[in-house]
Amino acid sequence: MGAISEDDLIARFFAPIAGPGALGLKDDAACLTPPPGCDLVLTKDALVAGVHFFADDPPEAVARKALRVNVSDLAAKGADPLGFLLALALPVGVETAWIERFARGLGADAARWGIPLLGGDTVKTPGPAMVSVTALGTVPTGALTPRTGVRAGDLIFVSGTIGDAALGLQARLSPQRFAGLSQTSRAHLLGRYLDPEPRLALAHALRAHASAGMDVSDGLVGDVAKMLRASGVSAHIRLCDIPLSDAARQAIAMEAALFETAMTGGDDYELLVAAAPDHAAALQEAARLAGVPLALIGEAVAGAGPPRFTGADGGEIVFARGSFSHF
Amino acid sequence: MGAISEDDLIARFFAPIAGPGALGLKDDAACLTPPPGCDLVLTKDALVAGVHFFADDPPEAVARKALRVNVSDLAAKGADPLGFLLALALPVGVETAWIERFARGLGADAARWGIPLLGGDTVKTPGPAMVSVTALGTVPTGALTPRTGVRAGDLIFVSGTIGDAALGLQARLSPQRFAGLSQTSRAHLLGRYLDPEPRLALAHALRAHASAGMDVSDGLVGDVAKMLRASGVSAHIRLCDIPLSDAARQAIAMEAALFETAMTGGDDYELLVAAAPDHAAALQEAARLAGVPLALIGEAVAGAGPPRFTGADGGEIVFARGSFSHF
Repeated sequence: MGAISEDDLIARFFAPIAGPGALGLKDDAACLTPPPGCDLVLTKDALVAGVHFFADDPPEAVARKALRVNVSDLAAKGADPLGFLLALALPVGVETAWIERFARGLGADAARWGIPLLGGDTVKTPGPAMVSVTALGTVPTGALTPRTGVRAGDLIFVSGTIGDAALGLQARLSPQRFAGLSQTSRAHLLGRYLDPEPRLALAHALRAHASAGMDVSDGLVGDVAKMLRASGVSAHIRLCDIPLSDAARQAIAMEAALFETAMTGGDDYELLVAAAPDHAAALQEAARLAGVPLALIGEAVAGAGPPRFTGADGGEIVFARGSFSHF
Repeated sequence: MGAISEDDLIARFFAPIAGPGALGLKDDAACLTPPPGCDLVLTKDALVAGVHFFADDPPEAVARKALRVNVSDLAAKGADPLGFLLALALPVGVETAWIERFARGLGADAARWGIPLLGGDTVKTPGPAMVSVTALGTVPTGALTPRTGVRAGDLIFVSGTIGDAALGLQARLSPQRFAGLSQTSRAHLLGRYLDPEPRLALAHALRAHASAGMDVSDGLVGDVAKMLRASGVSAHIRLCDIPLSDAARQAIAMEAALFETAMTGGDDYELLVAAAPDHAAALQEAARLAGVPLALIGEAVAGAGPPRFTGADGGEIVFARGSFSHF
């Protein structure tokens, strides 16, 4: 770190990107007046170097990922961003330039998602870098889209494409497995792992039309099961309707085992959404207007068992491991 | 960790201590309705094993300290606790019993300070344990006690006694330096380091009567300078009026250099408070009713220079290092 003190570091790199409620990052706390008629939505996701990102990832990308995995949780709840707090543990000997680039990436991304930095803490650690973000959002009172709201008969949708980030991680870990892939496809998968794209554009559609929402962070198969279990229902999911990117299709065509990686691998940060049949058309139209693809992948059914996943021939497919756990 | 999954860990140890807004810790986010007519006060302090606490501290004490350093920030702003979020990074191989004791200590302390657990994240780390807490509080709209509010002529107070925790840390690091101290005094100092006592009982007195407030976490001398610099004024502080415990007096009597440790060493979590002269009596009376000692230690004066610290004979005393930085 050299001679830079915590106060200097905050004044030089973080105060310039802080929002009005941050009190210039010079006080013990941030202060803001919550908008009237709203509930607060609060989420906190932490990332550790070597576990959730690579220690040699660009610092801007580390900052973006730390913020975006939290913005994704807000989107899944139908919430508008209000602000965030940051705890940053920096390894002994970190370069000042790393911190500067991290802060620049964070500031640009906070502006993009409309979520100002409100405060935080910067500490040193003898271990790996760690970034912990607490994000605050708002929904009109009572309008949060819960994970527990799926009802039998609801249609189940997922946004974007599934599996790209999990394949991107594998491409990072075992480049030779993906050597047959085009440069464009490899870049697509690697980029989806490095820079998740939270579906904040769907937040209003969710709170207006969805009965339940959840972000897909630990693998679609496991997260579908988790949402249904929380709701006390089961489902039938058609694997052939789960949206895949061209790059993912190419990778799976080369090595069929990568299909399971795509379905269970995690880091998608897409939204899993349930809607009653009479809300489904409005939800799909709202997603279309928001410019986010939303695919119908199955239906919720009564019962407490795990969801059934079926292939193109209607036969059931069981995954060896349902979900990826960072833990 | 053995076979326990993150979901099991949350369900077994953390869900039982969560507040109503936590949605059973089963959703992507917490949800709460902020009380009307209030500003939100937000603070975030992170602790790393080997930096802010000892890796072999009792897990209950680690949990208490992580929560209390944040409650102390709320108290300094005159805020009532609303809830907190927790990010817990656990080293590979941590015992389930450690997590259980941590959660038990956290739950008991959350109940004591009236600050429910709302949510969070649990991750593994190849490094040391890290605990990051984001605390939320409320003040009536506009009533936050700022760090920047000191005006020339204000009286300056500090709660409790100063230096015990810094001496306790030294007693932990170099027991032989404190061998001449009574068992009771040693236990007092060690206890003040291990278990800070946030002055939440003073929060209402601060927001009713103080012009500025700050918690003393990085050493009184440096923190006084920080509050005055933020306020654009200077001050005269009488060192002989700074309250010391009997244990601290005994330690300093044995080794005079420990006076500087006490004044600059940090981890006090007492409150530094400024009040206009016509509010001072009401502030002191409110502190008396709250059962918290509050000592008058000096006055703010016009000017931008650093505060002057004077000894019993009126001569100025300059400290070699103004403040302790964890960073």
